[in-house]
Amino acid sequence: MTDLQALVEEIHHTLKPRTGEGRVADYIPSLARVDQDKFGIAVIDLDGNVFKSGDCDEAFSIQSVSKVFMLTLALGKHGEATWNRVGREPSGSAFNSIVQLEHEGGKPRNPFINAGAIVISDLVLAGHTPREAIGEIVRFVQYLADDPSIAIDPEVAKSEAATGYRNLALANFMKSFGKLQHPVDHVLGVYFHQCALAMSCTQLARAGLFLAANGKNPLTGHTVVSSQRARRINALMLTCGHYDGSGDFAYHVGLPGKSGVGGGIMAVAPGKAAMAVWSPGLNHNGNSLVGSLALEMLAARTGWSVFGA
Amino acid sequence: MTDLQALVEEIHHTLKPRTGEGRVADYIPSLARVDQDKFGIAVIDLDGNVFKSGDCDEAFSIQSVSKVFMLTLALGKHGEATWNRVGREPSGSAFNSIVQLEHEGGKPRNPFINAGAIVISDLVLAGHTPREAIGEIVRFVQYLADDPSIAIDPEVAKSEAATGYRNLALANFMKSFGKLQHPVDHVLGVYFHQCALAMSCTQLARAGLFLAANGKNPLTGHTVVSSQRARRINALMLTCGHYDGSGDFAYHVGLPGKSGVGGGIMAVAPGKAAMAVWSPGLNHNGNSLVGSLALEMLAARTGWSVFGA
Amino acid sequence: MTDLQALVEEIHHTLKPRTGEGRVADYIPSLARVDQDKFGIAVIDLDGNVFKSGDCDEAFSIQSVSKVFMLTLALGKHGEATWNRVGREPSGSAFNSIVQLEHEGGKPRNPFINAGAIVISDLVLAGHTPREAIGEIVRFVQYLADDPSIAIDPEVAKSEAATGYRNLALANFMKSFGKLQHPVDHVLGVYFHQCALAMSCTQLARAGLFLAANGKNPLTGHTVVSSQRARRINALMLTCGHYDGSGDFAYHVGLPGKSGVGGGIMAVAPGKAAMAVWSPGLNHNGNSLVGSLALEMLAARTGWSVFGA
Amino acid sequence: MTDLQALVEEIHHTLKPRTGEGRVADYIPSLARVDQDKFGIAVIDLDGNVFKSGDCDEAFSIQSVSKVFMLTLALGKHGEATWNRVGREPSGSAFNSIVQLEHEGGKPRNPFINAGAIVISDLVLAGHTPREAIGEIVRFVQYLADDPSIAIDPEVAKSEAATGYRNLALANFMKSFGKLQHPVDHVLGVYFHQCALAMSCTQLARAGLFLAANGKNPLTGHTVVSSQRARRINALMLTCGHYDGSGDFAYHVGLPGKSGVGGGIMAVAPGKAAMAVWSPGLNHNGNSLVGSLALEMLAARTGWSVFGA
Repeated sequence: MTDLQALVEEIHHTLKPRTGEGRVADYIPSLARVDQDKFGIAVIDLDGNVFKSGDCDEAFSIQSVSKVFMLTLALGKHGEATWNRVGREPSGSAFNSIVQLEHEGGKPRNPFINAGAIVISDLVLAGHTPREAIGEIVRFVQYLADDPSIAIDPEVAKSEAATGYRNLALANFMKSFGKLQHPVDHVLGVYFHQCALAMSCTQLARAGLFLAANGKNPLTGHTVVSSQRARRINALMLTCGHYDGSGDFAYHVGLPGKSGVGGGIMAVAPGKAAMAVWSPGLNHNGNSLVGSLALEMLAARTGWSVFGA
Repeated sequence: MTDLQALVEEIHHTLKPRTGEGRVADYIPSLARVDQDKFGIAVIDLDGNVFKSGDCDEAFSIQSVSKVFMLTLALGKHGEATWNRVGREPSGSAFNSIVQLEHEGGKPRNPFINAGAIVISDLVLAGHTPREAIGEIVRFVQYLADDPSIAIDPEVAKSEAATGYRNLALANFMKSFGKLQHPVDHVLGVYFHQCALAMSCTQLARAGLFLAANGKNPLTGHTVVSSQRARRINALMLTCGHYDGSGDFAYHVGLPGKSGVGGGIMAVAPGKAAMAVWSPGLNHNGNSLVGSLALEMLAARTGWSVFGA
Repeated sequence: MTDLQALVEEIHHTLKPRTGEGRVADYIPSLARVDQDKFGIAVIDLDGNVFKSGDCDEAFSIQSVSKVFMLTLALGKHGEATWNRVGREPSGSAFNSIVQLEHEGGKPRNPFINAGAIVISDLVLAGHTPREAIGEIVRFVQYLADDPSIAIDPEVAKSEAATGYRNLALANFMKSFGKLQHPVDHVLGVYFHQCALAMSCTQLARAGLFLAANGKNPLTGHTVVSSQRARRINALMLTCGHYDGSGDFAYHVGLPGKSGVGGGIMAVAPGKAAMAVWSPGLNHNGNSLVGSLALEMLAARTGWSVFGA
Repeated sequence: MTDLQALVEEIHHTLKPRTGEGRVADYIPSLARVDQDKFGIAVIDLDGNVFKSGDCDEAFSIQSVSKVFMLTLALGKHGEATWNRVGREPSGSAFNSIVQLEHEGGKPRNPFINAGAIVISDLVLAGHTPREAIGEIVRFVQYLADDPSIAIDPEVAKSEAATGYRNLALANFMKSFGKLQHPVDHVLGVYFHQCALAMSCTQLARAGLFLAANGKNPLTGHTVVSSQRARRINALMLTCGHYDGSGDFAYHVGLPGKSGVGGGIMAVAPGKAAMAVWSPGLNHNGNSLVGSLALEMLAARTGWSVFGA
């Protein structure tokens, strides 16, 4: 335990000088404004021990990391029927590409690209109003992290909506193929809000712990999903969790994980720990540059890669 | 141990009636001629215990499973510089697609699609004659499996060459982008021969054992690759090993693996075992239909998925 | 002259039995409801003589035929700078494809596919309100046809807006690339209304007469555009006027023309005549099936093809 | 007549200073070696009067201009059945793109892109040996131009074959779809040789005269094709004759024409004249930059555009 704390601190110390690398997402002002020097790490083991360093308790915009929680919620409501609406394959293209949709009849490749997450928002709505669905999402994430203070940043949600032309295009395109059941503005209302969840590394790691523990949060005792479903969500994170850099992340880190353009990454070492990093500078695939390096170091030093003996 | 033998037999017994499903590859006569009822399973643990059932000792055309051995060989010759020539990302398209090559300047997405494996053949050639390179490949696979009887089926190699228009297109296309260093006919000579390796499930499982054991074959004591490289090859198999069905295989099976259109799949449970299945009927992604189901059952019952605790 | 009237009647008589072929556009109720048996032809020569037959004086939804008038209007406002915003090349894909936009940075290939016509709507707006722009468009078409009774069908405009998800996708997609200057709803307000212009064959032929006469309407004496611009608009109609069937139309008919999914086609024989046909059944490219055949017969019998001596 | 000679000289004089613009094709040494300052124009009217200037009698590599003669030959052998093998639509992509082939089952969009011309070579072979077919092609072009001195440049043909990886890719790709009936090396043998025809502007203009005269060469009295077929070949040149710059050429010049990477363009003013220009510097679409400008000036000054009255 002491060792892990030392390791986390060492990684933070080693990589802190590199936080200036990469590029902060600037498509909305509230993201562009974030201090690029921020860098936090938090690891939580199955006994609830937390090892952390840096800006690990400062909330940031988790952006696409939320897609994991949304998928979990949709699977809870619709079960395997979810996969009639969205695929499970890596896309081989950028997170916001529309080409694949045209070639494949409007069905998104997986729930972790924008188009897929919009379909998941449609599934989470399930006849409710956007307000109700957004409330349910926030409560679900609070429950996962066992922390009622988690909230959506309303300014970010508003900015997403104001500049979300690409997502409007994706949603209307799928609607034209009959792939969304609710009105586009309802679906995107949900989508833009869940993107705007603000969480710290510590909160994110706790929220992901059920995926490291066969579906049951060991701290609260809540069974969130079955062990089979936990494995499957992990599989999806590994193959599709980092957009068109998923293969690279698997190669270098070897852990299921999900990144967001806010610079956060949540990752899972099954049977061992959940973890989260935050560093706003992004690499060319839109994943946290220093965050990816931190997880690579962590996996190498702990031997947590799922691909090693 | 006894349990594992019973499990392997049970899986064989349960799935044997379904071998008629799917479609046998028919693009070359020697593949089309194979009896679709063939079905073999072999599992080998790190102590060398073998558990097997059905047609597990009959040699079949391993086809693209060989791409794992070829990658291993290329990495041995060129190290990480290999990745200057071929990517590490899932392709999001069919195994023989040429579209991605045109959009991305002739560089294949990963070593497990045809275009990527052709580049790997170019790297394995490394200035040698095709005959020399083919000899080296055979000896390498014999060494991995510790079995000098493994050979290439010359009839299959000849058929591949006679009907390989699509691969000729891929190779010439990459050549036009300056992405192959040797003459196209040399590169394809190597490529068509390594596709034609004939191995049994038992041989394949043994040949893959180093990947389950951090790079060192526990039976021969040979260190084939470093533990880091073994993890990385496993990561590539998991994200790209089953063409455009890789996400699906990860979701259902949760093990690194590589399939071939001959109906074989080799898979690895790190720290536990290597395994191979053979059943010629293919699903719509070109992967063994019954073989995939067999591995799903095996992973579910053993808890070997890399994504569970 | 008498001959031409006889020819028009003969063509109508010959093809009338085939109006049941093809498929009426059904994406909006007011189009789906149209009687598939409708069939009109009108030809007007440079002296103003009109030759017509069938339902040639019944107004129908001209749909994309209006794109020619919109382009003329945009060129009048912005001149050759129009081409900074939209290309002049055939698209090689369907009228509503979004793939090309993603591959080419959001700039549409030509003004006669939907994406291009949406950009043209943005150019026609030019700082005005949608209501003002729509008024201007209607007045311009009335002026071209010298007929103040031409109007927009408000029910069609409303239906277009209610079901226009694909166009919403195209517009938002271009907006995300910074390719539209006005708000998306303003641009589409204009776009949906100009699609809904209702005109008869006779009116359409008169409105197109300036293109057959070097830019000057010989009936009113109005110079609409320069002779160079008239030639250039004709060139665009010939290469891009029939979506992905433009090559086929040039091959069989050999006249510059523009079709709409309402089943109308306007065509021009430079120096000779302007003409319009209407028959709602569409071929697989979305062009009037019987209308195309009628123009092929007309061009063959008159020798009006621009490609003959 | 004197006027036309003066015009041709004026155009040559005006544009000669700009021959340094653009880029000479350099993919084979014999093209790269050509003097970029070369510039010739030749116009021939239906009475056989020739108006010419500059390097109009120096033979150059006509490259893709030959595709028009090849299409004429294939239509002569196979009639409209030719179109079962190749389309008639602009491609919306580069001359050597393979993407469209994958998306459309291996059938090329038109006979004037490389893939389409390879299919045409297959059709011209028609069971003969490559040597016989090549002989027939040369004799056909000699017959069209009424000039038995026209020949293939063997060095160019050899260079094409030595560096033709992209065309090898296209041919093998189509072969894999079953779209070529002869062996790939036979088809490409024909293809590479017809590309290597060496002709002067004067010869090219004479060879194209039948297309300006309803299919009958007015000088020899030979009926080459029917008037309908002449119109149709002209239509194809107009919509597809300049690769992905066909729309632009129609817009600026307004004449059916076909360009080649050797810097030649042959064009046709139906009922008036045939013409050819040569200037090796190419624009970004691979068409002669100065040659296009020369034809634009010529069409503007003569009023020969097919789109004007």
